[in-house]
Amino acid sequence: MEPVKVQILMLQWVQMLRGPKKTLGTIALQHDAATSLHTQLASQLKSRIQHGELSAGQRLPSSRDLCALLRISRNTVIAAYDALLTEGYVEARERSGMFVGRAANAFRQNSHAGLHASKPGAQFRPDPVTRFRAPVPFRPSQPDVRLFPIRIWNRERARLLRRGTAILNYQSVFSSGFDGLRKILADYLRDSRGVRCDWREIAITSGSQQALFLLASLLVSPGDRVYLEDPGYLGARLALRQAGARISPLPVDNEGICLPPSDQRPVPLLYVTPSRQFPMGYCMSLARRLELLQFAVRKRTWIIEDDYDAEFRYSSPPLPSLQHLDDRRRVIYVGTFSKVLFPSLRIGYVVLPPRLVDRFNKLKHVAEDHGPLIDQATLASFIESGAFHTHLRRCRRAYAERREVFLKCVSRFGLPFRFPDTDGGMNLAALVPDHWNDEFVSERFRAANLDIPPLSRYSISQKTNGFLFGFTAFDPPAIEHAVKNVATTLHADSQHLPACN
Amino acid sequence: MEPVKVQILMLQWVQMLRGPKKTLGTIALQHDAATSLHTQLASQLKSRIQHGELSAGQRLPSSRDLCALLRISRNTVIAAYDALLTEGYVEARERSGMFVGRAANAFRQNSHAGLHASKPGAQFRPDPVTRFRAPVPFRPSQPDVRLFPIRIWNRERARLLRRGTAILNYQSVFSSGFDGLRKILADYLRDSRGVRCDWREIAITSGSQQALFLLASLLVSPGDRVYLEDPGYLGARLALRQAGARISPLPVDNEGICLPPSDQRPVPLLYVTPSRQFPMGYCMSLARRLELLQFAVRKRTWIIEDDYDAEFRYSSPPLPSLQHLDDRRRVIYVGTFSKVLFPSLRIGYVVLPPRLVDRFNKLKHVAEDHGPLIDQATLASFIESGAFHTHLRRCRRAYAERREVFLKCVSRFGLPFRFPDTDGGMNLAALVPDHWNDEFVSERFRAANLDIPPLSRYSISQKTNGFLFGFTAFDPPAIEHAVKNVATTLHADSQHLPACN
Repeated sequence: MEPVKVQILMLQWVQMLRGPKKTLGTIALQHDAATSLHTQLASQLKSRIQHGELSAGQRLPSSRDLCALLRISRNTVIAAYDALLTEGYVEARERSGMFVGRAANAFRQNSHAGLHASKPGAQFRPDPVTRFRAPVPFRPSQPDVRLFPIRIWNRERARLLRRGTAILNYQSVFSSGFDGLRKILADYLRDSRGVRCDWREIAITSGSQQALFLLASLLVSPGDRVYLEDPGYLGARLALRQAGARISPLPVDNEGICLPPSDQRPVPLLYVTPSRQFPMGYCMSLARRLELLQFAVRKRTWIIEDDYDAEFRYSSPPLPSLQHLDDRRRVIYVGTFSKVLFPSLRIGYVVLPPRLVDRFNKLKHVAEDHGPLIDQATLASFIESGAFHTHLRRCRRAYAERREVFLKCVSRFGLPFRFPDTDGGMNLAALVPDHWNDEFVSERFRAANLDIPPLSRYSISQKTNGFLFGFTAFDPPAIEHAVKNVATTLHADSQHLPACN
Repeated sequence: MEPVKVQILMLQWVQMLRGPKKTLGTIALQHDAATSLHTQLASQLKSRIQHGELSAGQRLPSSRDLCALLRISRNTVIAAYDALLTEGYVEARERSGMFVGRAANAFRQNSHAGLHASKPGAQFRPDPVTRFRAPVPFRPSQPDVRLFPIRIWNRERARLLRRGTAILNYQSVFSSGFDGLRKILADYLRDSRGVRCDWREIAITSGSQQALFLLASLLVSPGDRVYLEDPGYLGARLALRQAGARISPLPVDNEGICLPPSDQRPVPLLYVTPSRQFPMGYCMSLARRLELLQFAVRKRTWIIEDDYDAEFRYSSPPLPSLQHLDDRRRVIYVGTFSKVLFPSLRIGYVVLPPRLVDRFNKLKHVAEDHGPLIDQATLASFIESGAFHTHLRRCRRAYAERREVFLKCVSRFGLPFRFPDTDGGMNLAALVPDHWNDEFVSERFRAANLDIPPLSRYSISQKTNGFLFGFTAFDPPAIEHAVKNVATTLHADSQHLPACN
């Protein structure tokens, strides 16, 4: 390739009719580039406008002047101006010439506000990694990804890829997930969660959120009523609302969801978190579980059991799933690997009652087809190798310790929180006196670089006042430091804010 | 490992206070198992209760009696009873001992109903890898994944992962895709396809199928009419039907989709493949493009432009996209990396008109949240490094050669196919005489291990008779061999089948 010739011109262009001397800045046109001259010119003018160097209403040189200055053909300038006209960057005023468009002010506002200001002119140098963030204390439901044995994961992945390129191809048979993963998952769910299923009843999804979204599309018609826990998980509420559901909240006590005493209206779907009610943490009692299953049979209600973090139980072996008790197969079991592996992996799953398998698989095929297969196959090998169980045990130990450290710190700093008696999981709900405004305080926490959602965020019709603390993603020193920060924030507020005292 | 010792005990236990002689049945405790003795004991008692062998209110042996019978420590029995108490299977009555809980009756009801009683204890042994398959000739739209530089991809991926673990965390800001990828993609689409957009108008999806599905959910209400090309892409038709659309097919000629002369009814959406009509391969003429854009403005129709394989053009530089001409921003541009990288990666994208950006992002957040971020960040680095463009050039060269080889072989074997004059892409549509039954012949091909779909599969209201040959995934010797196989199959059929002659 011959060396690139670049023509650089400094344009001093006098705005002749009114106003001070203006400059268009440096215009660099490259005559033998792949991009045509008029495209180069247009894109550089556009960039000046986007950066506020040329502002709305400002007059631009006539095409005649500009072609002379740049020593290019007038047609080139006209083509460039045309493109800018088309895109709204400039405006032609009859008999006055070309002006920077009024939309330009919007660019300046955006760039002054500085929120997500981008530089469209391709000056962007991607720096892919610095933008990824670790969670801030005490963001709920976040695993500590530093514990994840990424080297072992990569070793299994490399082993897979060495066996051939076939895995890179589209695999139409796997639109509900790689068979190998579904099979080993059926074993794992049976052994660890008492889930009773054939592997063909499992579909792999992109996180549990996709499972909830697809189930909502499948089972809810617009206007249908669905039962949700109150307070409850927001992701489920959003998915069901998206499908047009009318939400009927059911209160929660320390035995789990409270069913309505008598309800004649049909309810096609009920969403519940029996192992550890989100966000309160209560484990649903056996009596309540059986009552719920009878309710589902009687009313022909599908139950979505979201078992989002049942792996993390510290004092006794995890309770079996609700699905385990469900002889009539009205329970749809949803789970995720986001919490036990790492969240950006995006692998979840759903265990379907036989009557829903075909319908769900068809929908999955239309909605996405299969997910990333290398990850799915790597996960199967990761579980098969035993690394998964080792990792799980390691996390359980670490998280149990962190739970203790958190509670000790809270006690040491004398924080006025009441924790319902739960096993923990990944989060602890802290109740506060009624006169507190948890949303307000949560905002104060945010200002102190603490990510502690108010419990009222998860409430639907009856307010639960408090905060949700996730303790798993932070090591003991970080927990201690952050609890101190919580104490300081509350103390500062108690001086001058009636919200908490 | 030493052989497993299993202690089996038949327990004859007399219920002393009232009632007949009862048995606990067989309790088998395995002393050196991974599962602790108390867990084994608890789970076996639980199973008796669940199966109605022990019924509500029935007295259980005291821990003292049971430890003696089973020859295990009393603490083990107490731990097992504690677990059952926690789960509500048993109840402790003051000064009377331990009883099967009242909830047990509900189990009997459920288990008598007996619908879909599944057999836990799966006999399955996973075999994760052998199941992945490469495509069979001439499966359409499949890249040759053997050309993909997986080592370079892995190198970029490893480099990313070395920079820290933050990328493993959930990143709520990236629910429409990793910023770094969206930015570099905006550049790439502008340079290669003339797509005009700000990077914030790009959303990353799990393949183009997810984009189509979400767009259909967003833009189509049940009963709405939508325009599709006839013949046309099945994935789009399925996604639109799923959203409840009524399909209005529009015929296709060698200038692309044929718009209806006058149509007063509203049509919210039109799906089109302008760069290379699927499956026929025609490139939409400029006149037709302008007509289509005017139509969209007049009727307020959203146009989905699916640019599924525009990267592969052999004779001239690719035409800019329809989106490039669309000053009024009615075109939604959909693309995928499945064809230019590898299909099991599952990364696609959509370029949204400004008015749809927020709505789409909200829906994406509810439907899935972000996709796998390691892949997205690796892809950004892969493009940035130049490896993407090198790979693309390499594929173009290889595929151009394969196209030539395919056409030469077809000619050499004198196959009675007529190929419309198209540039090729990844597939060639072969037209056959009207009296052929392409579906029948396609079945004969399948029996000869050829994957050649009939064109009528893509037809809606007017039948197009022929076959779709994908030539990209197969090297020249494989193509030659497979064309010979096609010739043999057709020849064999011509002897005794009226379908083709």
